[in-house]
Amino acid sequence: MKTDTMAVFGKATESFSAGAKTLPQRYFVAREIFAKEQEAIFSEQWVCVGHQSQIARAGDYFVREVAGESLIIVRDQKGTIGGFSNVCRHRGTRLCEEASGHAPAIQCPYHAWTYALDGRLIGAPHMESAVGFDKSQYSLGTVRTALWEGFVFVNLADDSAPLHSTFAALAGKFTHWNLPKLRSAQRIEYDVRANWKLIFENYSECYHCPGVHPMLSKVSPYDSAENDLCEGPFLGGFMSISKGASLTMSGNACALPVGEIQGEDHARVFYYSIFPNMLLSMHPDYVMVHQVWPTAPDRTRILCDWFFHPEAFGRADFHPKDAVEFWDVTNKQDWRVCELSQQGIASRAYQPGPYSPRESIPAAWDREYLRHLPHAL
Amino acid sequence: MKTDTMAVFGKATESFSAGAKTLPQRYFVAREIFAKEQEAIFSEQWVCVGHQSQIARAGDYFVREVAGESLIIVRDQKGTIGGFSNVCRHRGTRLCEEASGHAPAIQCPYHAWTYALDGRLIGAPHMESAVGFDKSQYSLGTVRTALWEGFVFVNLADDSAPLHSTFAALAGKFTHWNLPKLRSAQRIEYDVRANWKLIFENYSECYHCPGVHPMLSKVSPYDSAENDLCEGPFLGGFMSISKGASLTMSGNACALPVGEIQGEDHARVFYYSIFPNMLLSMHPDYVMVHQVWPTAPDRTRILCDWFFHPEAFGRADFHPKDAVEFWDVTNKQDWRVCELSQQGIASRAYQPGPYSPRESIPAAWDREYLRHLPHAL
Amino acid sequence: MKTDTMAVFGKATESFSAGAKTLPQRYFVAREIFAKEQEAIFSEQWVCVGHQSQIARAGDYFVREVAGESLIIVRDQKGTIGGFSNVCRHRGTRLCEEASGHAPAIQCPYHAWTYALDGRLIGAPHMESAVGFDKSQYSLGTVRTALWEGFVFVNLADDSAPLHSTFAALAGKFTHWNLPKLRSAQRIEYDVRANWKLIFENYSECYHCPGVHPMLSKVSPYDSAENDLCEGPFLGGFMSISKGASLTMSGNACALPVGEIQGEDHARVFYYSIFPNMLLSMHPDYVMVHQVWPTAPDRTRILCDWFFHPEAFGRADFHPKDAVEFWDVTNKQDWRVCELSQQGIASRAYQPGPYSPRESIPAAWDREYLRHLPHAL
Repeated sequence: MKTDTMAVFGKATESFSAGAKTLPQRYFVAREIFAKEQEAIFSEQWVCVGHQSQIARAGDYFVREVAGESLIIVRDQKGTIGGFSNVCRHRGTRLCEEASGHAPAIQCPYHAWTYALDGRLIGAPHMESAVGFDKSQYSLGTVRTALWEGFVFVNLADDSAPLHSTFAALAGKFTHWNLPKLRSAQRIEYDVRANWKLIFENYSECYHCPGVHPMLSKVSPYDSAENDLCEGPFLGGFMSISKGASLTMSGNACALPVGEIQGEDHARVFYYSIFPNMLLSMHPDYVMVHQVWPTAPDRTRILCDWFFHPEAFGRADFHPKDAVEFWDVTNKQDWRVCELSQQGIASRAYQPGPYSPRESIPAAWDREYLRHLPHAL
Repeated sequence: MKTDTMAVFGKATESFSAGAKTLPQRYFVAREIFAKEQEAIFSEQWVCVGHQSQIARAGDYFVREVAGESLIIVRDQKGTIGGFSNVCRHRGTRLCEEASGHAPAIQCPYHAWTYALDGRLIGAPHMESAVGFDKSQYSLGTVRTALWEGFVFVNLADDSAPLHSTFAALAGKFTHWNLPKLRSAQRIEYDVRANWKLIFENYSECYHCPGVHPMLSKVSPYDSAENDLCEGPFLGGFMSISKGASLTMSGNACALPVGEIQGEDHARVFYYSIFPNMLLSMHPDYVMVHQVWPTAPDRTRILCDWFFHPEAFGRADFHPKDAVEFWDVTNKQDWRVCELSQQGIASRAYQPGPYSPRESIPAAWDREYLRHLPHAL
Repeated sequence: MKTDTMAVFGKATESFSAGAKTLPQRYFVAREIFAKEQEAIFSEQWVCVGHQSQIARAGDYFVREVAGESLIIVRDQKGTIGGFSNVCRHRGTRLCEEASGHAPAIQCPYHAWTYALDGRLIGAPHMESAVGFDKSQYSLGTVRTALWEGFVFVNLADDSAPLHSTFAALAGKFTHWNLPKLRSAQRIEYDVRANWKLIFENYSECYHCPGVHPMLSKVSPYDSAENDLCEGPFLGGFMSISKGASLTMSGNACALPVGEIQGEDHARVFYYSIFPNMLLSMHPDYVMVHQVWPTAPDRTRILCDWFFHPEAFGRADFHPKDAVEFWDVTNKQDWRVCELSQQGIASRAYQPGPYSPRESIPAAWDREYLRHLPHAL
């Protein structure tokens, strides 16, 4: 055996310093840490579940699972967006089976109990003869909802800070991107066999781009990143487009500009991670948004939407696939290396490894993450 | 947030009163309660495994799994039905692989140890030279079997009450239905992603029929139920057939009457649940029997047989599919809402909900169930 | 109930005497015992991972999982075979995805860190600017490797006895079989739903052959076994070929003799089990080797290679399929009865059964196994 190699299967005694090295193994594989994350992060923080344009009319709804809880996100008759647990108050039946839809009211498929779009029980056959039954006590369970730049967020905790205070640091920062008015042209869902934190760490650096993303690296130099948010729940900055007008298969813009893009920003893509589950990638002509949903320590469901200016739709110069395909290829390259990392990290041989200077944002993301799990180390 | 809605994700502090509301969540999802049920109910009670007509000749057998134990139910040369564990006494090998069959003896596929149909070891090559080996010590393990109205029951416990005393309350009640002589024309197996208790609760009320079973509701009014067994291990009564001669796709009788059906009973279907795993649905011209086998907290295997008068078979007016299809459609409608209930009940938002006056039998079934798990609450 | 049968579901109170009867149930089903085996046996003993001919040139490698750890077994520029953990020292990424291959160096697919074939880190882009980073501290983790008769063995423990002392009892015993020079013509992988110990117990007796292997029994009498290794980690002996020149579909030899086979050995097959994961079956014209890899208490992955004299390849009289098919059929017959045993042993009704005089080698294997798990009983 060589003297300059370590013994892999002996005991690791290195001390851990958050952000200097990658996280210890248990953060990627342990059921207990996964459960703690679901409780302390996904049940306590504001998480992105979609965009207001996806439920434009009264009665439009979609269903999203947050920390294991199926929620109905629905627009009511007054235009208000509400969040309700997808569980009948009678015998616990799942109310909405479809991922999205439109309905005048929410009716249980079992015994036809019926709820208004604001959650009130308005019909319960035969319950009038049940002694002491009071309809007003059987509204649907509610969850808090709030909007940020047109995106719908929910928070399972009743006592956490309001969204506008949590997001205060971003107030006005993205106004000229016109986010509230955009509309999604396509969604792709990915099922990735890797821990959700690997997805964020991967998104947060381009050190891997030369080897992993040959197509992207040709048009956006991996060392062109300039970050303006370097610590905390919101992290990122821009990278340059050195060739072509946007990140598309053709290299051309594929739609009207999304907003009031000024000067050099026409040749930049802005990449921000919004803790804990949103990735916001703003191009001159489209905005890509990833929702990152952990489903197991080694598994993550990702919803990826491509948003465009509402007036871009239907025009002759509207080619959304040009952008979608570019990133679908690139996304899959990322998921592959995340999956390989998951495999290696699950090994007894894994030890936290050193972050390079090119990985300052993943390191910052780890620090933010650890602030939410102070007792897990 | 509205003031008339509850906070879903706070702590539930409602007290529980058996039968007034549905069971608490853990009864439908917890592995420990499932294990306790398998032990205190399925390993202690008489459970239905089939009908004597399914093993009519000596050497006929079928295999059934009860509380995780694979059992061979076989008729021996004397005509006696016995139950044996499906495990060779030599090296533990599974003896019978097929779900049913016919054999002159039970021979192990590994080293050819051979057992008579009454379980005695009658052949063990080379064991004559094993010191101290005594064949009589290596008979197959036995389980108690008993017949009720032609149905075969087994009981894994050696010290539980005999079947005739457990079933004393039903003595003579079904004599005119001719059950011991009937024969099954078809079996359908269903794999339902719901807790087994949801199957019983669903069977025990027709409050759900208008929404879930449009076809059934047209010919058998959902509010026509008259129950004569309202508390205890045997529950149910009859419902009226308001249109047509039986519950069939055509509305016609599909076979000879099963027994000495008298007067108004020609326009009635009798539905009884036999705790813990049998549903008995007696129509003028056929008897449907469900065996309900829990396989996991959220999964149940159901065997459904359609029995007819033995002389009905082969006649020109014998149309068993006419009945089978009617109930296959109806069964699947039920399994779907049971599966939706399982999904909703698994949510943190689930709380026991109020039973209506139309759900007195499910409430009684819950009470009987809880008598067998006194310490689980 | 008959008086000569035991009550299956009562408590088993028989005492256990290693080797007289089969092992108790928990050895075949308990996760804790599986974990203990992985730790005390598969992480402490020398285990066979392949043959030196399978990585003949510098840069040839294969990947094998040992006790859950993915290892790269690779030949370096000096011709030395080394074993490395398949985990990048940077962010833990799995390095080699393919089961085998050829590469000038080991490069991580994520950030292109590059390791020499002897495990030294030789390239790490941008790390030169990381404060205090020292390449020599980030070589790949190593595992001990050693050769026995041309077969590659690894040992995850740094402090266990060297292979040559463990295998001292076999020194010189197989020299005339020419094992180091042989080459594999085919590998078949099997996934068996049975505990790995059932595979060894099955290999170690031919009491089951008349019923399970009609084809084999015709040409090699089940009672012709003569064992010369009867206790300890190496067990076995020979059986006669009574008809034909070898165990092949045609009955003919299918290749040149593998080594200096003398006299009566031309009509013998030598079967040895090498604790804990190798089965060595030497025929006059080929050598079959099974690697036995437990993957769960009830699941085993088996790699089976057929080795031939290197000069046999390409000749007109070389018919490797003739041997491969013979044993592929026979292997599958064995896996089936092993799977049936797994099923039966998992039953509550299972109790250790008596070994016959024909099962002295399985009994000896059990005793050797128990020496490694002294505290598990």
